Amino acid sequence: MRVTEQTLEALSIGAAILGTGGGGDPLIGKLMAQQAIAEYGPVELVSLDEIDDTDVVFPVAMMGAPTVFLEKVPAGEEGYMAVQRMERHLGKKVTALCPIECGGMNSMIPFVVAARMGLPVVDGDGMGRAFPELQMETFHVLGVSGTPACIADEWGNVVLFETVDNYRLESFARACTVKMGGYSHLVDYPMTGTQVKGTAVRGTVSMAIRLGEALQEAHRSHVNPVEAVLAATRNTIYGHGIALFQGKVVDVSRRTSDGFAVGQARLQGFDEEEGKSMVIDFQNENLIAKVGDEVVASVPDLITLLDPDTGYAITNERLRYGQRVVVIGIPTPEIMRSEAALSVWGPKQFGYDIPFIPLEQAYPDFYRRVGVPLEKEKYLALMPPLER
Amino acid sequence: MRVTEQTLEALSIGAAILGTGGGGDPLIGKLMAQQAIAEYGPVELVSLDEIDDTDVVFPVAMMGAPTVFLEKVPAGEEGYMAVQRMERHLGKKVTALCPIECGGMNSMIPFVVAARMGLPVVDGDGMGRAFPELQMETFHVLGVSGTPACIADEWGNVVLFETVDNYRLESFARACTVKMGGYSHLVDYPMTGTQVKGTAVRGTVSMAIRLGEALQEAHRSHVNPVEAVLAATRNTIYGHGIALFQGKVVDVSRRTSDGFAVGQARLQGFDEEEGKSMVIDFQNENLIAKVGDEVVASVPDLITLLDPDTGYAITNERLRYGQRVVVIGIPTPEIMRSEAALSVWGPKQFGYDIPFIPLEQAYPDFYRRVGVPLEKEKYLALMPPLER
Repeated sequence: MRVTEQTLEALSIGAAILGTGGGGDPLIGKLMAQQAIAEYGPVELVSLDEIDDTDVVFPVAMMGAPTVFLEKVPAGEEGYMAVQRMERHLGKKVTALCPIECGGMNSMIPFVVAARMGLPVVDGDGMGRAFPELQMETFHVLGVSGTPACIADEWGNVVLFETVDNYRLESFARACTVKMGGYSHLVDYPMTGTQVKGTAVRGTVSMAIRLGEALQEAHRSHVNPVEAVLAATRNTIYGHGIALFQGKVVDVSRRTSDGFAVGQARLQGFDEEEGKSMVIDFQNENLIAKVGDEVVASVPDLITLLDPDTGYAITNERLRYGQRVVVIGIPTPEIMRSEAALSVWGPKQFGYDIPFIPLEQAYPDFYRRVGVPLEKEKYLALMPPLER
Repeated sequence: MRVTEQTLEALSIGAAILGTGGGGDPLIGKLMAQQAIAEYGPVELVSLDEIDDTDVVFPVAMMGAPTVFLEKVPAGEEGYMAVQRMERHLGKKVTALCPIECGGMNSMIPFVVAARMGLPVVDGDGMGRAFPELQMETFHVLGVSGTPACIADEWGNVVLFETVDNYRLESFARACTVKMGGYSHLVDYPMTGTQVKGTAVRGTVSMAIRLGEALQEAHRSHVNPVEAVLAATRNTIYGHGIALFQGKVVDVSRRTSDGFAVGQARLQGFDEEEGKSMVIDFQNENLIAKVGDEVVASVPDLITLLDPDTGYAITNERLRYGQRVVVIGIPTPEIMRSEAALSVWGPKQFGYDIPFIPLEQAYPDFYRRVGVPLEKEKYLALMPPLER
């Protein structure tokens, strides 16, 4: 699939939905990627099946606070610099790039560098959504070393990490990123083709594009945009999306803690949810949605707030009193739900003393009705055995 | 000069004096170096004149909080690991090691690694005392790049820095060091023989040994130990040491701020200083000594508190109410007093709106009497032209 400036438009819309309230507004990343494609030409998005075992694949991303990214626009060469440094360190030429997350801004960064270098981007990532830390990757869960990793800033400073575990990588790289002024460009988990095929969440970039295109089409044909988003999840490796709640925002509390945007949104229902209320907790990304005392959706399933009129995702920094929203849930791909995976990004890892409750369990009637999609079944057959 | 376990004993005493109240207690470093020498044999201390232009010299040191170092004893191989990593990065074998500072604990670390690797240690360092930050080195002042630099911890984590300036190195390495648990082992400013000969403060390790041996000799022959320390500074590249004040500690305030031990000691005079008082400000190391309102000594000149009975240096963490002390000043070597040098470690760099006041200026009568020592004149002739 050829990714053009137009494709990036759709990708940015879909990536905001998969960003689950966080992940950073894709806007600046999209503009950078569009500029790179205008200058160097379109980028090939290749499926994992097209990757050779001997390919050299570098995940490339931005690390740090998306808010800073909006104010202190990158010079544009940082990601390329980090990739070059990693090539030099490994003594190997990279043959494909890959996102670490397909939600939010980091869906875009690989395209900036790929256009510049004439490389393909892999249609897959390490989480099929957005998460805040470097060990929160299927690559990590399935045993790939996050290091050697390197970060670069707009001044030309480069730091290379060789750590004994991926948590240390997160800790050291985060500390340096803060000192770099709030964000850096990162290459971590450098992989062979075999490794990326065995560990990535498949087809997530095209999933984001599909969501974006569905919404664009809904706007053209005056179809209900929220319905269009939910329909676009049908027969993917994700579960079927479901509308969890509609209401208006009656309270938002938000604070910055240890570099994260932590907070809570409170919604008051209308129409069929008249009299009910929903509370959504977030740490950058949405973590838990409750109706009354009942947890109806939990991380790593995707919880996203959409504008009911446009279907566009509303990121947490843009939430405000009085806004009308529809909250949707999308079951995360199965690879994200293994016991090992949940020990990295389950509710407990974010400080909640509750088990992960899959949307299928919270809404059994709906999911009995829609069934397990064919693509998801095919996907399960492809994946390494899960240790659940 | 062969450095044995006994030499290290003297070095640790002298290095505490050159540590000017900071630099960290050399105890653990000394034990590590003594153990390494017991295991691998003595280490050759070589003068800068014995270094070839093509030598490959690595400064090796500990970075971080000396207090943590006392509680969380190093595994012992960290410095060696950092040196090996730097060799691998540069594709060169190191031929000599060098201290970054000869004051306090870091006088010892090169000997730990040198014994292990069968390498000589250079008799010189980057400041002839102790300072808290990585850019506070004559190497930096005279244009050597601090990077590539690398730090290692006891777990085997290694971080490699390539920065556009030495202040960034300090900032990034400090941040990672905190995340490594409070200290790390460091190789920075890797140099050729030519570079180290043109930038190091000469003979500082042997100066520390000389101070320590003078004190040991004074103890054996029941000579006044403070007099012995001052006499040992005669005819060195430092100026002649001078007793500035004697009194007892009536107040110590100390707080930890941004990873530094910041504070003030107040002394009440006795004997000829009866009725006078001295205030000493420190940030890890002693910065400013005042009698009444008059600044009598200021950074980078050395201000050290000695126990009047033993002549041993008292580090700031061991200062306590009621202690009797003698405060001595030692004029810093001339290479440390250039305008460029003072712009890195003059009083202004530590937040004082005063110029550097050399001890020779504060005590003109004393210094007219003792004159400029021969060694210091020879040293001035050897050094690169100063831009004062």
